[in-house]
Amino acid sequence: MARIVVDVMPKPEILDPQGKAIANELPRIGLDGFAGVRQGKRFELTVDGEATEDALAQAREAAEKLLSNPVIEDVVRVAVLDETEEN
Amino acid sequence: MARIVVDVMPKPEILDPQGKAIANELPRIGLDGFAGVRQGKRFELTVDGEATEDALAQAREAAEKLLSNPVIEDVVRVAVLDETEEN
Repeated sequence: MARIVVDVMPKPEILDPQGKAIANELPRIGLDGFAGVRQGKRFELTVDGEATEDALAQAREAAEKLLSNPVIEDVVRVAVLDETEEN
Repeated sequence: MARIVVDVMPKPEILDPQGKAIANELPRIGLDGFAGVRQGKRFELTVDGEATEDALAQAREAAEKLLSNPVIEDVVRVAVLDETEEN
């Protein structure tokens, strides 16, 4: 079993009200170190067996066709999950 | 300017209807290589200047207090964004 991660973010020129709301809230709980926040989506696609080149190609196609809206979002990452990277 | 990424995913034992809906839809567009899909959130926190240890500590606190619901979600990653990692 392997996992492929697809990360999708709102395009930089698109307003992100959720991110803005979080950015406004952070100083109220004492966290004043941030200049801005953007909120996007993370998908984990599970593959039986190895994450082959074919599986990665399918994940890229899924990212463009199903997981993102290309008018307002960018696919910023399609990558095999390094299981040691996570907590 | 640096960016810190916070990734939040539903806990494995929590039902994820959005991920399930995507998993059901993938074969309908010809992508049959996946055993399952989970949908989570990705946040990008912008820091003026360097991403210091203090900024990372603030991001971890934000992840636990504001960006995730610890009852149903896990913070799976808090890391300085490697700008070469993205497209």
